[in-house]
Amino acid sequence: MNKIRIGIAGYGNLGRGVELAIRQNEDMELAAVFTRRPPETVRIRTEGVKVYGMEEIPSMADGLDVVILCGGSATDLPVQTPELARCCNVIDSFDTHARIPEHFAAVDAACRESGHVGLISVGWDPGLFSLNRAYAEAILPVGKTYTFWGKGVSQGHSDAIRRVEGVKRGIQYTVPVEAAMERVRRGDQPDLTARQKHTRECYIVPEEGADLQKITDTIVNMPNYFDEYDTTVTFISEEEFDAVHNKMPHGGFVMRSGMTGEGETTHQMVEYSLRLDSNPEFTASVLVAYARALNRLKERGETGCKTVFDIAPVDLSPLSPEELRAHLL
Amino acid sequence: MNKIRIGIAGYGNLGRGVELAIRQNEDMELAAVFTRRPPETVRIRTEGVKVYGMEEIPSMADGLDVVILCGGSATDLPVQTPELARCCNVIDSFDTHARIPEHFAAVDAACRESGHVGLISVGWDPGLFSLNRAYAEAILPVGKTYTFWGKGVSQGHSDAIRRVEGVKRGIQYTVPVEAAMERVRRGDQPDLTARQKHTRECYIVPEEGADLQKITDTIVNMPNYFDEYDTTVTFISEEEFDAVHNKMPHGGFVMRSGMTGEGETTHQMVEYSLRLDSNPEFTASVLVAYARALNRLKERGETGCKTVFDIAPVDLSPLSPEELRAHLL
Repeated sequence: MNKIRIGIAGYGNLGRGVELAIRQNEDMELAAVFTRRPPETVRIRTEGVKVYGMEEIPSMADGLDVVILCGGSATDLPVQTPELARCCNVIDSFDTHARIPEHFAAVDAACRESGHVGLISVGWDPGLFSLNRAYAEAILPVGKTYTFWGKGVSQGHSDAIRRVEGVKRGIQYTVPVEAAMERVRRGDQPDLTARQKHTRECYIVPEEGADLQKITDTIVNMPNYFDEYDTTVTFISEEEFDAVHNKMPHGGFVMRSGMTGEGETTHQMVEYSLRLDSNPEFTASVLVAYARALNRLKERGETGCKTVFDIAPVDLSPLSPEELRAHLL
Repeated sequence: MNKIRIGIAGYGNLGRGVELAIRQNEDMELAAVFTRRPPETVRIRTEGVKVYGMEEIPSMADGLDVVILCGGSATDLPVQTPELARCCNVIDSFDTHARIPEHFAAVDAACRESGHVGLISVGWDPGLFSLNRAYAEAILPVGKTYTFWGKGVSQGHSDAIRRVEGVKRGIQYTVPVEAAMERVRRGDQPDLTARQKHTRECYIVPEEGADLQKITDTIVNMPNYFDEYDTTVTFISEEEFDAVHNKMPHGGFVMRSGMTGEGETTHQMVEYSLRLDSNPEFTASVLVAYARALNRLKERGETGCKTVFDIAPVDLSPLSPEELRAHLL
């Protein structure tokens, strides 16, 4: 059987994660890495595979079954995914929830014009969390769904605190409130405010002579980012920062508290959770599994843009339908 | 839009659960209930719907989009599902894991001959737990999967203790060992014996004058059922039995402890859990959601037997693909 030939477009944390995830799947191989940097400055881990400029993708498209886009959702993917869908089968982890319909339409149009297949917003949220919301709500139509995030590093919030005057280094953890989760698990179906669901923990290395009280005040009152949450600010040394806060853990919980039976009085609780020591490596693993599915759709002659909702679980697995039924059902 | 017309074949706890679950889904209606008992002795909850003998299903098949089989896996479903697949689109919750390939083959053959679609082993294990095993293993190919059950009533073990001499009433709960689950969550990837994963709790109302020590000894040493577990036997009054042990709770956990990254040293933990106050009502809710998917397969002209692995999440939902993308992705 020919291996699925995968191209990686963008070689940051996520791209490196995809490269490593491909190694864990025997039916795939890394075909090429594409970058916007000068290709000769990018060193990858896989021997015998070359790095090219992003602009070379169209001319190399014949040798790529699937291109995994590893850029950012703010500015890269809205442009890159539709553009590359004109020449390749593409998959991305676009995660700006509010702009998904717009992104879907752009990728779908490009795919239909060119006869390719696309798969967007693949990761864990959006992605696996979305799947769990959809499954649980279809099964328990009467109920309430909750999503809690963390404990984990929020890139957006970390960026925001690093822009505060006097902050040399900074990282922000989103932490779910255990007491709120316990109320959900009990079946209370509470209405929870942002403050009741998550707290925010900031660890900061201040510039020398910075006004610590002013930094704290600026952060905890920052609109949109922190003012609606209980936020703690802890000042630490650069050594501690490097030793303790050098990882990108994340995770979270999707919970559906549903009611069934006569008078809808029976409580049924579904909970899905992730505890990830590396957010980009896990997202990469999800992308790679879905790249397998995308390749199968392509082989079946499908076109257009898809999401995780459209993919049957069987298409993610390296196992045959017979093996899945015999061993995992 | 026409409602999906559902027939229920078998009206025990599961069939009653299906009847109630249909009410929670506006796009469905109960068309008929079929029973092996004299139909006039069966009282259902839905006004205007009639009860028929099981043998009338073939002649009424035109008025049924999907028949949900609610019999037992030991003797009912292996016969009924293939038989009814000759005239109807069928869905069952066949749960004898070891015999799934055989059951699949029988239902598939019947479906292909008659041009119908079948969906077997729909519930939570097999069913939702199977899905979570398949998703997590596809995403994290290097790792270990664990399934823990409970706390919940095991019908098979409860039946076994009720056959012991001197036992008037009895119920058995399977209880997952919290310490073992914590080891899995920590990423230890332990090899766990049956005894290390679950304990078994029996509550028994003894016959008057029964030898309690003998009952206990017989149970805890019972081969296959209890000898490989740490089992507790508690004798209670009939009043307590009726007051406390009149429910059918169940649930459990599917966990995937996976490793990613350079040298596969990054731990990634996926956990799915159910806490069900009523096992049959929840299984019924799963069956009803999958009945919607089965009806869509039928409308697309598909035939043959399927499992949960073959069903894309979009087909379970009453929402349109656009709504799903906008609200749940």
